[in-house]
Formats: sequence, C-alpha cells, structure tokens
Amino acid sequence: MTQYKSKHGYEGLLIVIEGTDGSGKSTQIERLKRWIEDQSYGVMVSEWKTSKFIADAINDAKDRNLLNATTFSLLYAADFADRLEQVIIPALKAGFVVILDRYIYTAYVRDVVRGHNIEWLKNLYDYAPEPDMVFYLDVPVEILLKRIIGTTGLDYWESGRDIGLSSDFYKSFQIYQGKCLEEYKKMIKEYGFISIDGTLNEKEIHKKIISEVKKILEV
Amino acid sequence: MTQYKSKHGYEGLLIVIEGTDGSGKSTQIERLKRWIEDQSYGVMVSEWKTSKFIADAINDAKDRNLLNATTFSLLYAADFADRLEQVIIPALKAGFVVILDRYIYTAYVRDVVRGHNIEWLKNLYDYAPEPDMVFYLDVPVEILLKRIIGTTGLDYWESGRDIGLSSDFYKSFQIYQGKCLEEYKKMIKEYGFISIDGTLNEKEIHKKIISEVKKILEV
Repeated sequence: MTQYKSKHGYEGLLIVIEGTDGSGKSTQIERLKRWIEDQSYGVMVSEWKTSKFIADAINDAKDRNLLNATTFSLLYAADFADRLEQVIIPALKAGFVVILDRYIYTAYVRDVVRGHNIEWLKNLYDYAPEPDMVFYLDVPVEILLKRIIGTTGLDYWESGRDIGLSSDFYKSFQIYQGKCLEEYKKMIKEYGFISIDGTLNEKEIHKKIISEVKKILEV
Repeated sequence: MTQYKSKHGYEGLLIVIEGTDGSGKSTQIERLKRWIEDQSYGVMVSEWKTSKFIADAINDAKDRNLLNATTFSLLYAADFADRLEQVIIPALKAGFVVILDRYIYTAYVRDVVRGHNIEWLKNLYDYAPEPDMVFYLDVPVEILLKRIIGTTGLDYWESGRDIGLSSDFYKSFQIYQGKCLEEYKKMIKEYGFISIDGTLNEKEIHKKIISEVKKILEV
C-alpha cells in the first residue's frame, strides 16, 4: 500500500489513538477514518473491549463490582487476544489501515494504577503487534472532568471507585485520572507517542494527526 | 492447625491433585476429603474452571470452537484469578484444607502443548500460592483411552482437536494426551510432584496419598 515498511510486518498499517475518556478520541477517529477513506484506502476501526463473548462477562462482572484487579486485567487481555486474532490481524493481512481506539497502553495504565507490576503486564501483551504510529491526546484532569460531567457522567470504573481512592465520586475521579495521566506521560518517550494537546479545537487536532499520518501513508 | 509451616504463608493447607481426565482424580479427591473431615478439619474442594461468570464465556466459546490458543489461555487465567481471590484464599485464611482438582500445572501443560512459551505462562501465574503438596496420578495413554471411551466419551478439547493433530478423533486423543503426559513428566522434578501409579486400585492409591498427607497434617 505504501513505500513505508510497517513495524509489525503485515501489509496494512496500525494506527493507535490513546487518551482517557473525554480526551476527544472518538471525534478524531471518525475524522481520521473519513480522511483515509477519501484517499481510497480500506479502513477499519476497532475499540478496546468489544469482542462479543467476553464483553458480556466483563459487563456482567462490572455490574456486580465483582472483579479483583488481576481478574479484570486478565479478562481484558483475553478479550484483546480474541479481537487481535479474529479482527485486527486479518485486517492487517488484507492491507487495511486499522485505527485502534486505545491499545495495550490503556491496559498498562489502568493496571499499573491498580497495583500491577509493569513487567508482568508487558509479558502478558508481548505478542501484540507494534503499532506504526501512536497518537496521545493530552487533556488535563480539570477539563476532562467538565467534559465528562457534561456528557456521559462519572462512571464507576473510570473514576477508579473499585480501588477505594475516595468515597467522594468527584474526588475519586480526580485522583484516579490524575494517576492515569501520570502513567501515560511516562510512556510517551518509551513508546514514541505523538502527544497532541487535546484542548485545541477539533480541526487543529485533526490537521496535526493528518500531517503525521501522511508520513506513513502514500497519498 | 499444625506444626507444619505452610509454603504460602496462610494458615490453611493447599493440596493439589493433578492428572489428565480419566486419571482417577475425582475418586481420590472424594476419598481424601472424607478422610480429612474424619480428622475434624474443615475441607474445601475447588476445581479448575468453575467460577460462575467466566465459565459461561468459556463454555459458550468452546461450543462455537472460537478460541485461539492465547484467548483460551487468558480466559482460564482470568477464571483462576477470580476463584483464587473469591474462594481459595479466603478458605486458606480461615484455616481450611483446600484440595484443588488440578492447578496451574494443568494450564502449563495445556498451553505448552498449544505452543505457548513456558516462561510466558510462569509469569502469567506468578501470583499463585505455592501448594503444600502436589500429587500426580500417572496413567498411560492407552488406559486413559479405555477409561474415557467407557465413561464420558472423547471430548473435543481433551482430544486436542482444536490444534489439528489428526482428523481422527481417537488418534488425536492419543497424540494430544501423549504430549500432555510428556509435559507432566517434565514437571515432576521441577515442582516436587508426588507421582503415584494411577493404575493401582483405588484403595492402594488412597493409602499412599494419606500416608503423605499425614506428614503435613497433625492427626
């Protein structure tokens, strides 16, 4: 599809958009998808946690607040393995541009904040193909809070209520997301994330993303 | 409960019975359980793969033969983590003798035969408490075959049909279980399994097990 040699060895490209809830990922993914389609490439979007048979188990357990940190972590890993095999790798083999809404870095962040050892996690996901490009939408906690309260409302898990940071939902969200942002920041350099200021307006962010994607996609 | 210092640091004892399907584990576990009860100890039996919410996902996926090796492996791991946290550790803390019908060694065997790296697996289960005693019921493939055909019949997964060893069910079982037995044998020394000839009669096996258990249980 391009002169660019993919990092994972498959014919397609793997582009990841990372960021916490409320960072504007969905909007940017939708715009990027349309833009790539306009360049006449096949595009596929896949979200973290969507494969049918495991999603039910996760949601069921979440509803009952049953999951301990390790089970939670392993269920997500199983879900990812399933989706990788059934959806992502076939699409990459077929030469698609695969846009992933969150990737293993999301698992690293969530699990490290819940007390897991990062080396344990890296081993757990060591079979995951290396993305060709990772964008990180950087948004400070206070702005995330406003965006989320104004839309979906505070979620039990996204507020880290399961790890008992505070009985106050608002405060728990603040502390939990703050910890997550710290972990994301640590990974920027290690994994070569392209960090983008998520407080810019939609169009500007889209432009920045496109200018990077052009480096690996022949248009 | 005893002068014996447990290997995992909890007050109770963790006794594992390992062996393939048809090796006579259930019978021996039932006998051992009754014997320990007769010594006035609290006993609990827990099987590999039984926690409610994940078992459904596993069975559902098995029915549709959907699982790739990594997903399979991670689902079992998630199930184990759940059961460990909810059932096994609370029982050990309460001073119970916990008899486990298969343990992490079963996962090692099944997953190594399916191509996983043993180091990856050891990392995956590195939080599992070390058992105080592991019995391995050793039965040759030909005898297993006769026992299983005479009772439950050949199962898709226990015959390793998912990894395409042979289109002939009987032959597939033979090859698959043969590979499993090889892996078990490698572990006997590494993990200090007490290997017992599973072709002996029930009573004799029971006697051997009891004589070992007496070493760690004050009776």
